[in-house]
Amino acid sequence: MSAGVSPDLLDRFAAIVGDKYALRSEMELAPHLIENRGLYHGSSPMLLKPATVEEVSAILKLATETGTAVVPQTGNTGLVGGQTPREGKSDIIISLERMNKIRDVDPVANVLVADGGAILAEVQKAAEAHGRLFPLSLGSEGSCRIGGNLSTNAGGTAVLAYGNMRQLCLGLEVVLPTGEIWNGLRRLKKDNTGYDLRDLFIGAEGTLGIITGAVLRLFPQPLGKQVAFAGLNSVDDALALFNLASSLCGTSLTGFELMPRFGVEITARNIDGVRDPLESEHAWYVLIDISTSDSAETAERMMTALLEQGFEAGFVEDAVIASSVAQQKALWHMRESMSDAQKPEGGSIKHDVSVPVSTVPDFMAEAQEAVMAAMPGARICAFGHMGDGNIHYNISQPVGADKQAFLARWHEMNEIVHGLVLSHAGSISAEHGIGQLKRDELAAIRSEIEMDLMRRVKRSFDPANIMNPGKVVSID
Amino acid sequence: MSAGVSPDLLDRFAAIVGDKYALRSEMELAPHLIENRGLYHGSSPMLLKPATVEEVSAILKLATETGTAVVPQTGNTGLVGGQTPREGKSDIIISLERMNKIRDVDPVANVLVADGGAILAEVQKAAEAHGRLFPLSLGSEGSCRIGGNLSTNAGGTAVLAYGNMRQLCLGLEVVLPTGEIWNGLRRLKKDNTGYDLRDLFIGAEGTLGIITGAVLRLFPQPLGKQVAFAGLNSVDDALALFNLASSLCGTSLTGFELMPRFGVEITARNIDGVRDPLESEHAWYVLIDISTSDSAETAERMMTALLEQGFEAGFVEDAVIASSVAQQKALWHMRESMSDAQKPEGGSIKHDVSVPVSTVPDFMAEAQEAVMAAMPGARICAFGHMGDGNIHYNISQPVGADKQAFLARWHEMNEIVHGLVLSHAGSISAEHGIGQLKRDELAAIRSEIEMDLMRRVKRSFDPANIMNPGKVVSID
Repeated sequence: MSAGVSPDLLDRFAAIVGDKYALRSEMELAPHLIENRGLYHGSSPMLLKPATVEEVSAILKLATETGTAVVPQTGNTGLVGGQTPREGKSDIIISLERMNKIRDVDPVANVLVADGGAILAEVQKAAEAHGRLFPLSLGSEGSCRIGGNLSTNAGGTAVLAYGNMRQLCLGLEVVLPTGEIWNGLRRLKKDNTGYDLRDLFIGAEGTLGIITGAVLRLFPQPLGKQVAFAGLNSVDDALALFNLASSLCGTSLTGFELMPRFGVEITARNIDGVRDPLESEHAWYVLIDISTSDSAETAERMMTALLEQGFEAGFVEDAVIASSVAQQKALWHMRESMSDAQKPEGGSIKHDVSVPVSTVPDFMAEAQEAVMAAMPGARICAFGHMGDGNIHYNISQPVGADKQAFLARWHEMNEIVHGLVLSHAGSISAEHGIGQLKRDELAAIRSEIEMDLMRRVKRSFDPANIMNPGKVVSID
Repeated sequence: MSAGVSPDLLDRFAAIVGDKYALRSEMELAPHLIENRGLYHGSSPMLLKPATVEEVSAILKLATETGTAVVPQTGNTGLVGGQTPREGKSDIIISLERMNKIRDVDPVANVLVADGGAILAEVQKAAEAHGRLFPLSLGSEGSCRIGGNLSTNAGGTAVLAYGNMRQLCLGLEVVLPTGEIWNGLRRLKKDNTGYDLRDLFIGAEGTLGIITGAVLRLFPQPLGKQVAFAGLNSVDDALALFNLASSLCGTSLTGFELMPRFGVEITARNIDGVRDPLESEHAWYVLIDISTSDSAETAERMMTALLEQGFEAGFVEDAVIASSVAQQKALWHMRESMSDAQKPEGGSIKHDVSVPVSTVPDFMAEAQEAVMAAMPGARICAFGHMGDGNIHYNISQPVGADKQAFLARWHEMNEIVHGLVLSHAGSISAEHGIGQLKRDELAAIRSEIEMDLMRRVKRSFDPANIMNPGKVVSID
C-alpha cells in the first residue's frame, strides 16, 4: 500500500499516539481517502488521532526529520480536495477529532477559546449558553471543525454583517511543520506587536502548520429579526435594493440573498415543504434578513421602511414579510435548498466566484450570454450572497441532455465563467479555497511575484515540504 | 555627513527622481531626523520624493543591489521612532508626499482606492463627498498618510464599531525591498486564493516593503448620533455599563471612553472652553457615543434605554445627554484634550497598553496600587477605549516634584505597568507599534519561535536587510 513510509517509521508515528489511535487498515482508512464531490481518491498508510498539542508537535517533528508528508483532516467537509491525501503517495493523515474541547468562554470579554478540532455547531451552542452569538454558520456545521474553518477562512451567509472567519479570530495556537508550538492565543482587539502571523495561517489550508487552538470573537444575541422575500425585475434592481438596505440597516443587514426565477421554480418543485412565497412570477428574487440588537421593533421598522422605499422607487414588484419564526425559517429554507433542488434536474456545473458588488449585474448578464452561446438550452441557476458579490454560479444541464456528456464540459464552462470573473477583477475561489482543485489555475492567474512570495513563506515555514504538500502552492 | 553612502551612489538615487526631488542639505533634512516625542535624533544623507510606483521600485531595487538602507517617512507622525532614520547611520528617507491621490471611489461597491501617500483627512472627505464614511479617525489625520496608517495598523476611537485599519483594507499595492511591485489591489470581501500576504504588510511598519496603494472599505454615513456623559462610582460599574451598551446597541455603539476624576478635573481646569458636564463629582466617567444608520430616533431610543437601565441597575450615578451637535462636540473635546491637559501638570509618563476587556477593572486596581507604592504622590490619569481594553495609562508627576527626576523614572514605571499588563496577557503596544522604542522589549517578551518566524519572514522578503532596518525586529 505504501512504498513511501517504512513499517518501522509507521510504528514510530503510531507510538506517539498509541496503537489504538493509529488507524492502518484499508477499511478504516477508506472514508478518509475520498471527499464529498467524488473528485479525488487518495492513498494513505495511516491516520493518527493525537490527544494533545504535544502529540501533534511530536508527529510533525518526526515528519520533518524523516521527510514524511502529512495531511490534516478532521471534518472532511472541504470542497477542493485540500484535506484529501494525494493519489499514489503516502501522506499520513492527522485528525484532531480527539482535540475537540471548548477551552473557555468569557462573555464579558466576548471571547471563546476552542481546540482546533472543536465542532462548529458545538462552538455555536457554547456561545448561546452564555447569551452570546458566534455568527459563522455553514451547511456542514454539524461536522466541520474550527481548525478547518480557520484554515479555509470559511464564509457563509453571515459574512455580510460579521465578516469571514478571519474577522472572527483574535489569536491562534499552531504547531509548525517542524514541530515547534506557536502560542499566539491572544484575546486582544488592539495589539500591534510585530508581524501578523495569525493571518498567515488563516486561509493557508493546512500547508503552513496545524491549528490546534483558537480565540474566537463573540457577539451580542440579536433581539429582533425580520425576514422578507421580494420579487424584482432585474439584477440591477436587486443591486439598487441592496444599496438601500445597506444605508437603512447598516450592520443590522444580516442577509441579502439573490435568487433567479429558475431557482425558485425548481426548489418549489423538487423540495418537500417549499412553496413559492409570492403569487406572481418574477425574474429575480431577494431574501432579506435584518437582525437588531436593541429591540424587535427596530427590526420591524427597518424592514417596513426598506420595502416601502423599495416599492416607491420601483425596485420591488412584490414582497412578503414573514409573520412568524416558522415562516422566517421557511423562507430561508427555500434559499438553503436551492443547490439540492438542482440534483433532480440532472448534472450541475458549479462555480465559487465573487466580483466587486457593483459589477454583479454586468457579470451576470455577460455570463448568461456566454454560457448560452456555448451551450444552448443550459439552465442557469445563479444565486447567492449578493451583498458580498459572491454568486454560486451553477449551470443545470439542458432538459433531456446526456448527463455525462454535459459534465464532461465542466472545465470548458469553468474557463468561460472564470474568464469573465477575472475580467471584473473577481475571485475564482470566493469561499472554498484552492486545495488541489485550483492549485494550477491559481499559479496561472496570479503574478509571478505573488506566487514567489507565497513560495518564500511556504519554504521558510516548511523546509522539508511535508505539510500538506501539493495543496495551494507547489514548491516541488 | 554620511560615511556610508558614496557621493556617486547618492547621485544614482537622485537621478531616479530628479535632483529637484532629492533633498540633501542639512536644513532640508533636519525636520525629518526627529519625531514628535523628542526621543530620537537620526542622521540621513538624503530624502527622496518619488512620483510613481515605478520610481519607488527603482529606488528599492538600487537599494537592495547596493546594500543601502532606506526608511519610509511621509507624515512623520509615528510615536515609536519607526519612521526616523537611525542615529549614526546613513538611512536614505523615502517620502510618498507626491503620491497622494485618491485614485477611485466606488460608492456602490463601497470601496475607495488611494495612493499610499494620500492624507487621511482627504480620504475621509472623498468618502463623504460620495455619501459614505471612512471611519478611521486620529488626532493626526490632517497630516498622517494612509500608507503609514496601514503600516502601523492604526486604531483610534472608531475601532469599537469598525475595527482597526486592518479591518478597513481589502487590498494593497506594495513595492518590495528588492524592487518588485506586488499588485494586490483587490476589491473583494470574499476571496480565498492563497496566503494572506496583505495582512503581512499591514502593521509591518515599513520593514517588509513600501505600501504605495490601498483599497479601503467605505461604510454608510450614520443618520442618527447621540453622545452622553455619565458619572460612575467604579471601573467595575463602567464595565457593567459597557456590557449593557454592547447588548443594547451592538455595532451602533461607536464610542465608549473611560475617564478618571483626575482627568476630568485637570481638563476642565487647563483646557479653554471645557467644563465639567456634571454637577457633582464622580470617581469615574464614561463618554458614550451611539451612531445609527436607519434614523435619528433609533439612536435616541437606544441612548435613553441605556441610561435608564444603567440608572436602575445602579451603574450610573448621574448622566447628561448632549442636546445639540455643539454639545456633542464639547463632550468629545473633553476626552480628546485629556492628554494635552496633563502638560501644565508637569511631566507625564505614558503607556500604550491593552488588556482583555474583562480584566480592565483588575488591571486598573493593581496598577494603581503598584504605581502609588513605587511613587507616592503620583497622579494617575488612565483613560481610553474601554470597549477595546485599550487604556492610555498616563502618570502625571506628583505636585511639586522635579520634572526631570520624575521623567528619569520612565523606564522603571514602564516595567511595573508592562509587567502587570503581561500578567493579564495584554499588549505593551495596543496602537502605536514597535518601531525602535519597543524593539528590544518585544524580543524579550515574545517566545523564541515567534521571533524566529518573524525573522524568517523578514529575511525572505528583505534579503539585503535594507528595508527600514533596526525597526520591529532585528536580523543583524
